[in-house]
Amino acid sequence: MAQDPHYFEDLEIGDSFEFGPLTISREEVIAFASEYDPQPFHLSDEAAAQTHFGTLSASGWHTTALFMKMFVAHMQANPERQAASLGAMGVDELRWLRPVRPGDTLRGHTEVIDKKASLTRPEMGIVRNKVTIFNQHDEPVMTMIPIAMWRTRPA
Amino acid sequence: MAQDPHYFEDLEIGDSFEFGPLTISREEVIAFASEYDPQPFHLSDEAAAQTHFGTLSASGWHTTALFMKMFVAHMQANPERQAASLGAMGVDELRWLRPVRPGDTLRGHTEVIDKKASLTRPEMGIVRNKVTIFNQHDEPVMTMIPIAMWRTRPA
Repeated sequence: MAQDPHYFEDLEIGDSFEFGPLTISREEVIAFASEYDPQPFHLSDEAAAQTHFGTLSASGWHTTALFMKMFVAHMQANPERQAASLGAMGVDELRWLRPVRPGDTLRGHTEVIDKKASLTRPEMGIVRNKVTIFNQHDEPVMTMIPIAMWRTRPA
Repeated sequence: MAQDPHYFEDLEIGDSFEFGPLTISREEVIAFASEYDPQPFHLSDEAAAQTHFGTLSASGWHTTALFMKMFVAHMQANPERQAASLGAMGVDELRWLRPVRPGDTLRGHTEVIDKKASLTRPEMGIVRNKVTIFNQHDEPVMTMIPIAMWRTRPA
């Protein structure tokens, strides 16, 4: 590893980075929805035309999965972050703000908004990030606050 | 439709139902993770053995997708609910409580915990449900509070 791990103590409120981009295809929208979220507006333009969506849009859970795909790729390309991450215990305030359409190109931005030591586990701290996923028009399509566990610097 | 739609006005705090079950296979765990969350502990037992997970576990985003699969199947089998649902604007307090392992059988429980009229859109109301996903040992593996939009009874 070229750099030291980026430990809990090294994170500061306001630290941010970008991840992505990733373009979502029509085939992928339909494949994900067929398996996990087979509502008509996620399956075809014809069915979506009967709803307030108008045209085909991706499942909101597909958008979260694509967030994760972009985020993991970023972390794996930045091993100093990867090394100190202990995963997420959950997510607060997930909001789907706009439909994601076939052909959209997504990118993400994340910023540390809170950090606190664990009361029970000195080897880790809890870090809250505000994540925003944008489309190619720089419109936010999804926001959320993952609650991540982060390794503290070894004593 | 055999029954009248179950409108916003018909929902009461404490209303609950069960959905599922669904068994998750090793192949599905690995396929989802390979596409969307390729962290080692989601890809093989060998890699997971090097981590605090110990053995292969599903991506948390796979568990949310499986929640949706079970939930949509329930709604499509209960058209009086389906007819009044306008989808979800987001989710609060998503928590992954325990690993989901290959071979686990998941089921869900949902209960109305809050409802309020929309201030701006009289045709809909906002309903919060507490969702719990259990494994075959009746252990909760995931909880969350989807924020659903629900059609009001036509005037």
